[in-house]
Amino acid sequence: MTTAAVYGTGSWGTAFAAVLADAGTDCTMWGRRDEVVDAINAGRNDEYLPELPLSPRIRATTDPEEAAAGADLVVLAVPSQTLRANLESWGSALPQHADVVSLMKGVELGTTKRMSEVITDAAGVDPSRIAVVSGPNLAREIAVKQPAASVVASSDESAAQRVADACHAPYFRPYTGTDVIGTEIAGATKNVIALAVGMAEGLGMGDNSKASIITRGLAETMRLGTALGGEAVTFAGLAGVGDLIATCMSPLSRNHSFGVRLGQGMSVDEVVAVTKQTAEGVKSATSILDLSHRHGVDVPIIEQVNAMITEGRSAQEVVETLLSRPRKSETD
Amino acid sequence: MTTAAVYGTGSWGTAFAAVLADAGTDCTMWGRRDEVVDAINAGRNDEYLPELPLSPRIRATTDPEEAAAGADLVVLAVPSQTLRANLESWGSALPQHADVVSLMKGVELGTTKRMSEVITDAAGVDPSRIAVVSGPNLAREIAVKQPAASVVASSDESAAQRVADACHAPYFRPYTGTDVIGTEIAGATKNVIALAVGMAEGLGMGDNSKASIITRGLAETMRLGTALGGEAVTFAGLAGVGDLIATCMSPLSRNHSFGVRLGQGMSVDEVVAVTKQTAEGVKSATSILDLSHRHGVDVPIIEQVNAMITEGRSAQEVVETLLSRPRKSETD
Repeated sequence: MTTAAVYGTGSWGTAFAAVLADAGTDCTMWGRRDEVVDAINAGRNDEYLPELPLSPRIRATTDPEEAAAGADLVVLAVPSQTLRANLESWGSALPQHADVVSLMKGVELGTTKRMSEVITDAAGVDPSRIAVVSGPNLAREIAVKQPAASVVASSDESAAQRVADACHAPYFRPYTGTDVIGTEIAGATKNVIALAVGMAEGLGMGDNSKASIITRGLAETMRLGTALGGEAVTFAGLAGVGDLIATCMSPLSRNHSFGVRLGQGMSVDEVVAVTKQTAEGVKSATSILDLSHRHGVDVPIIEQVNAMITEGRSAQEVVETLLSRPRKSETD
Repeated sequence: MTTAAVYGTGSWGTAFAAVLADAGTDCTMWGRRDEVVDAINAGRNDEYLPELPLSPRIRATTDPEEAAAGADLVVLAVPSQTLRANLESWGSALPQHADVVSLMKGVELGTTKRMSEVITDAAGVDPSRIAVVSGPNLAREIAVKQPAASVVASSDESAAQRVADACHAPYFRPYTGTDVIGTEIAGATKNVIALAVGMAEGLGMGDNSKASIITRGLAETMRLGTALGGEAVTFAGLAGVGDLIATCMSPLSRNHSFGVRLGQGMSVDEVVAVTKQTAEGVKSATSILDLSHRHGVDVPIIEQVNAMITEGRSAQEVVETLLSRPRKSETD
């Protein structure tokens, strides 16, 4: 039987802990803040996922060593730009033999490293023990046990298989894969694309325009991912187009909703002030653009979203630019 | 300057005539029914696209020869299962030198031929003069001049280019391509996939489930299309995933809405009785399944939808079957 330590108490970390529990895996969650840990131990993460009554298999602690004790599976679900600092603080507590799952979707600012690379860098975890889980997995739907499927990718197929076994719940279907690079790039860029799609929606555009932006977003994600060594087929699958569709179309997606407000005319700062949080795509646009430039890949949507965030370009200008590129053959 | 004859007065034929008119192309529409033709000549197709005031560049007639007179572009937009009978009736009126555009999305029952093949068969049009137009093009959004993009595919690139020039309006952006087979297969199957996605929605499922079904639908469309000689890249583009997303997610899509009612527990006959029309996906499921079997391609979603239509399987059973396939590697 598997015992898991889940680091991070946000909505996806919490929903994934519940998936593990429903798959028969006991979980100890680690969180920084007493009030969140206490709430989880009382049976509900009120702040991040109030709709989910937590199983008795899940408990929480603020002590990273206590969370790790006896775990053969470690799940990392902290904000992506804080991963390195977190691992530098408590990475040495992680059990040497454990498989390590990344639920994080982002590219590190400055280094432009993927989350699995940061895990290896900062905690010395061998890549063959790292798996990334990604797919059309809106946390709030999984919390209410709606059917969902996901990809568990690891360079070591047997690690992917062990993780898939540990999280296979009646409503959560994991498919194994080996394309870690493609899975991570797809997961990171979709948040930025979702901002652009949300902007189009906020500007009053319909499903034809939104579907076009998603399609072109998929194309640029695939260009970037394959340039980095990912496999094209990953982008046509659950972690690619599947996650992109869920994130870009659902009102439950934070990135999408953030984009809608931008499209309605608010500035990034104004949206953050109203929603009391920023969206992952806002934090990742610059690092993903940086990564693309380093590999000479053209990513017009990510470029436009980044120009909006860093130079204050308006949503109207961004979307007009995206929809008015010169007419040509589709695959040029 | 181009002059077009548009055969068919449904919502997409009418919206496309308006696109042509806005691109500077005069159009004569042909329709079977006096009242529809009269309405168009009075400036509005009340029955099929009431929201669109028609340009004076558009007129209509019930005489197929009059429609064809002087046309250098012929647009075919009749119901797909009636195409052969229509062409047998008035196909000889089509000008010999004209380019012929197919807006139709379907596979002929019995012969399992694509629409462009039926055009060649029944009207003797050379494939090098046929172009298919397909993409995320919900007619009701195009009617209100929302930005949209589309693929114009012809085996002859210069024909695709002529058609693209004739329909390039400020809000309608055509991209040229040469993959007629892939474009037609993508257009036909997406209606069937949209029924399945609608069923899931009608059963109360969320965006994770819907995105998973769309993703698996894209995979089976690609398997079928490439087995027939289409190019994989087409399915990742506007006519593939783009159209699939728009059709599967929009409440404006007839196939999607039809599926929602099925998911809510109505039978196919009951939905037809309430909506006074059937959905294209209901008519195409059997012929597409037949085509898939002839080429030995596994298409589980189309198979389930067809079983619902022809054997009365319930939406609940269909969706459960689709979401409960055995766990395995994603790309097996």
